[in-house]
Amino acid sequence: MKLAVLVGSLRKGSFNAALARALPALTPAGLGFETLPSVGLLPLYDADIQAAGFPEPVAALGRAIKAADGIVIVMPEYNYSVPGGLKNAIDWVSRLPDKPFAGKPVLIQTASISLLGGARAQYHLRQILVFLDAAVMNLPEVMVAQAQNKFDAASGELKDGPTRELIAKQLQSFAAFVRKTQAGAAVQA
Amino acid sequence: MKLAVLVGSLRKGSFNAALARALPALTPAGLGFETLPSVGLLPLYDADIQAAGFPEPVAALGRAIKAADGIVIVMPEYNYSVPGGLKNAIDWVSRLPDKPFAGKPVLIQTASISLLGGARAQYHLRQILVFLDAAVMNLPEVMVAQAQNKFDAASGELKDGPTRELIAKQLQSFAAFVRKTQAGAAVQA
Amino acid sequence: MKLAVLVGSLRKGSFNAALARALPALTPAGLGFETLPSVGLLPLYDADIQAAGFPEPVAALGRAIKAADGIVIVMPEYNYSVPGGLKNAIDWVSRLPDKPFAGKPVLIQTASISLLGGARAQYHLRQILVFLDAAVMNLPEVMVAQAQNKFDAASGELKDGPTRELIAKQLQSFAAFVRKTQAGAAVQA
Amino acid sequence: MKLAVLVGSLRKGSFNAALARALPALTPAGLGFETLPSVGLLPLYDADIQAAGFPEPVAALGRAIKAADGIVIVMPEYNYSVPGGLKNAIDWVSRLPDKPFAGKPVLIQTASISLLGGARAQYHLRQILVFLDAAVMNLPEVMVAQAQNKFDAASGELKDGPTRELIAKQLQSFAAFVRKTQAGAAVQA
Repeated sequence: MKLAVLVGSLRKGSFNAALARALPALTPAGLGFETLPSVGLLPLYDADIQAAGFPEPVAALGRAIKAADGIVIVMPEYNYSVPGGLKNAIDWVSRLPDKPFAGKPVLIQTASISLLGGARAQYHLRQILVFLDAAVMNLPEVMVAQAQNKFDAASGELKDGPTRELIAKQLQSFAAFVRKTQAGAAVQA
Repeated sequence: MKLAVLVGSLRKGSFNAALARALPALTPAGLGFETLPSVGLLPLYDADIQAAGFPEPVAALGRAIKAADGIVIVMPEYNYSVPGGLKNAIDWVSRLPDKPFAGKPVLIQTASISLLGGARAQYHLRQILVFLDAAVMNLPEVMVAQAQNKFDAASGELKDGPTRELIAKQLQSFAAFVRKTQAGAAVQA
Repeated sequence: MKLAVLVGSLRKGSFNAALARALPALTPAGLGFETLPSVGLLPLYDADIQAAGFPEPVAALGRAIKAADGIVIVMPEYNYSVPGGLKNAIDWVSRLPDKPFAGKPVLIQTASISLLGGARAQYHLRQILVFLDAAVMNLPEVMVAQAQNKFDAASGELKDGPTRELIAKQLQSFAAFVRKTQAGAAVQA
Repeated sequence: MKLAVLVGSLRKGSFNAALARALPALTPAGLGFETLPSVGLLPLYDADIQAAGFPEPVAALGRAIKAADGIVIVMPEYNYSVPGGLKNAIDWVSRLPDKPFAGKPVLIQTASISLLGGARAQYHLRQILVFLDAAVMNLPEVMVAQAQNKFDAASGELKDGPTRELIAKQLQSFAAFVRKTQAGAAVQA
């Protein structure tokens, strides 16, 4: 099983990029992890550009999502919602004719310096993914609050024990969720 | 396969009750339909009542949800959200120790005299059902707008052809979704 | 200026009821506080009941809201949304012909044992109050997380210093917000 | 009074751009209209770029918002939410130290080919604007559904009579809302 991580922040020192880096070590054995191309490679969505052909970074992102067994979206909360750059990437990918997110198992994680840990953005993202017909896992949820206390300031390593345990547990649930979703998809409608 | 319908309105002439009555005739052959007990039978949720024991109507509603293969929630939109009475029923059922909604396939339908057909309430209900860990189908969505033009005023019958077709298509998708979800649940985690 | 508090929980030992009791002592001098009738006095909303006349507890609640200069809604989060009982009260009041919430300054507070302090319910309530045309204050927000650590277990008194300070600050902002809203309403359209 | 319009779509033939062009003619006499710089001029938000100084297009957009008496945001719905490009512009502007949206009267309009007219995006935008402390008008709401039937295909002119009337009424309400909000802001806290 191969998972792929989409990071919603462009900042080099991003807590969410650091969270994404922590995932492989917290993952059940035998599960591969790939980091998806940066959402920063995409132009702002414009239907006129699309009419002239999908830019290659959009097509590449779509192919990588399509090829993965499950997608982990790791993002900050900007202004009580999904970061514009990440939403822009989703807007592009949603237009690809082969619908990379349709039926795809998706896991959401947020990290933020606030006390809510990005919770508000998660429910907006869930509403977005209804239209893309993704299979978004419900529980457990991971919202890393007060992120500045959970990561090592120098190395960026996720050092908080309870957070590491929750994420390991969530990834284990997600691996099972991917298997269940794939088994369901194999059933003849 | 046996589905059960939960109606979110108490009004006798409710468009949503009429919509629920229309479902059996629009359902794929071999699929049974049951109407769940009215949400009007439940007291307002009060943890002090719960501490003294779940009222029998709550327990009965929970058992009926647990026994069904899938739940169709048919509701109006009140004040841009889920009707209080329906939310109250969900609040009660959510406390039952055997978690009747956990893993349960759920389908949402709304009918309303407005142009939006109850859309706003659907996304609130979806957020609620994340916490209950229900398996809510994504697409297609059914929002019966301008309901006063879609039902026969005298008989209450759903007479609008395109609406009937959309619902038949949605119920067929839901039957497949229930089978897929059950097949997935049978996979060993 | 007279504020009125609407409590969204029926439990006797409710943290939210305790929070409501703490408000008068945290309020700027000269500001009166009234507790609105319990939402537990209202039947479940049914348009057939309404057609026969609004029940007296509904009318009484509407009059009290109408008479207040501002409303503080203090509620728990049930299943990631507004408690059914509180929503039911809003559903009733929204039908009153004199629209008690229209233009009314509203402040939202939540308390919960969870880490999010009821945040998810606040944004659902905000969407609801758009339709009621209430004037809901934006910031600062009060979400009392891990409420079991913020109140005295025996007396139910709000003992947490930072929470008391935040609420005092929020109430001061709300008093100014009420004055501004009233001054705006006095302007001839 | 001077209003400024922010358009959430980059497509040349955008229904929302056409809607924005229709506004001046539907506006109460004596009210000026300005079109804000395109959200397409901004790079994707990146805190590392911000650390090196706000790009001039961000600063320019912020100054124009700050200078207007009220902002009309006209946007499509992308994937059940706010377009990524518009959200990106809001993410940038929200970081400007002089907080251009704080206290600013805001009006929301959406146009879409769907039956819902962009409704879902409006409530996400409202949640976003809570954090920016904007003064967002509640009612009436404008959601131009089935936009392909409301605009002239050749000229792009908004030709639908009822839509024109609703927008004229909404703009009149907004002018009053701006005056009320400004009168309120003048009250000494």
